[in-house]
Amino acid sequence: MDDKIAFVKEIPCILVEKKGNKITEKNDFIITEERIAIYLNDIKIISVMSIPCDQDAYAVGFLMSEGVIEDIKDIQNIVIANDGLSVYIQANINTENLKNLYHEKTLTSGCCVGVTGNFDGKIIEKFIDSSFEISINRIWKLIEDFENSNLLFSITGCVHQASLILEDESKIFSQDVGRHNAIDKVVGKARLNQKDISKSILLVSGRLSMEMVIKAAMHNIAIVISRAASTYLGIKTAQMLGITLVGFARDNKLNIYTHPSRIILENS
Amino acid sequence: MDDKIAFVKEIPCILVEKKGNKITEKNDFIITEERIAIYLNDIKIISVMSIPCDQDAYAVGFLMSEGVIEDIKDIQNIVIANDGLSVYIQANINTENLKNLYHEKTLTSGCCVGVTGNFDGKIIEKFIDSSFEISINRIWKLIEDFENSNLLFSITGCVHQASLILEDESKIFSQDVGRHNAIDKVVGKARLNQKDISKSILLVSGRLSMEMVIKAAMHNIAIVISRAASTYLGIKTAQMLGITLVGFARDNKLNIYTHPSRIILENS
Repeated sequence: MDDKIAFVKEIPCILVEKKGNKITEKNDFIITEERIAIYLNDIKIISVMSIPCDQDAYAVGFLMSEGVIEDIKDIQNIVIANDGLSVYIQANINTENLKNLYHEKTLTSGCCVGVTGNFDGKIIEKFIDSSFEISINRIWKLIEDFENSNLLFSITGCVHQASLILEDESKIFSQDVGRHNAIDKVVGKARLNQKDISKSILLVSGRLSMEMVIKAAMHNIAIVISRAASTYLGIKTAQMLGITLVGFARDNKLNIYTHPSRIILENS
Repeated sequence: MDDKIAFVKEIPCILVEKKGNKITEKNDFIITEERIAIYLNDIKIISVMSIPCDQDAYAVGFLMSEGVIEDIKDIQNIVIANDGLSVYIQANINTENLKNLYHEKTLTSGCCVGVTGNFDGKIIEKFIDSSFEISINRIWKLIEDFENSNLLFSITGCVHQASLILEDESKIFSQDVGRHNAIDKVVGKARLNQKDISKSILLVSGRLSMEMVIKAAMHNIAIVISRAASTYLGIKTAQMLGITLVGFARDNKLNIYTHPSRIILENS
């Protein structure tokens, strides 16, 4: 059995179908999430509801997305507890950005409390002027692969995914119940493996709100593609930060909202 | 023009279609969200990214879902700022539950930082033993109405909705970019209108994770139905708190996960 199936539980339920008022007792496949605690330099800084896999990648991705850890080399040690429910990181940190994490509770349309604080402080000065380009034909192929890669979603209907396509065409993939977590996990995996992601493409399954775009900007990712919608602040932020934002990438169509010049539209 | 359209902006984009490599410049309809600040007894306690409508209902629903305000009668005054971006509430509050709101940052699979704190403290002792019942035929009709009622989703593809069906068959409806916010808005609207929602049904478009179930329990809502999936902790929490949980209610099918006896399955 694939180890990912370990995060799925079979739960009895009653399936009711309107046609013929059919009633069937069956088992449904349900995703399991756990509360995972992140400790930074011996202090518990946050907990997250997450599928308990890639916990170290999540912690690193989240803390780097928030600017608390600025360079992977600043991490001295990472340990995942045996029960998988805690991650302990020792690192040199940006204490100012750690304070921002607690600056104000902002319930975003999804999650990610601290991001908006950091956005107000620092990232707003950023502009990604990468000349990185990709052809539309390559994008169609990436979207097709992405759609076919989420086993856990196909089983449970309850999982977001994120994929980074690196310059050497290798791919890093992650999944989680939360769309934010999936992104933090995938960038964390890349960072832990010392990958340069400044010339990568981020594909996600979830809605592109402002905080998702900011996460991409924090990792200098110039192209972000989602199968879902973008919000107005998501688009505005991408425009401002120099990110090429693509939404509704599904059914062999897509919308390019910002900085379209990185996508070569002519067939080649 | 319907006033809800006021929350939609037309944004230019490039539509690319794979078939024939067709490129079209068009306008897309994008939902707008704003950061809205909630002040309680002259202290800013939280901000939320939300569609700027029903801000007062959101504030009341959120604070009652968190147990910070325990009774609508405890509210002396609510004012929405002229720019719509702040809500000011004066109320007698449960200071212990306000502290829980700040107890620990838990990034849930969606949002709602404080809920888990309150869950640990208080609500776990609750069990909803309501004998409220509903026929499956009535549920099919409610689902059909619910599917047809979200104008903003049909325009933008980026809006969650929540609906409360009261004992007198009247309906209260709300929508937001966030699935949590949509629930807080709809229960807040009911509370502001002095409605008894202990014999109501909550229909939602979003995933049923633990914190959604807890919100229902905080308002004594015995039946929760979603068109989306449930997580394992969502189902476990519903089982424990006495809530009838229904998922994947779409395409003329549904799954009953917990406490099925409230749903009368025989045709009548």
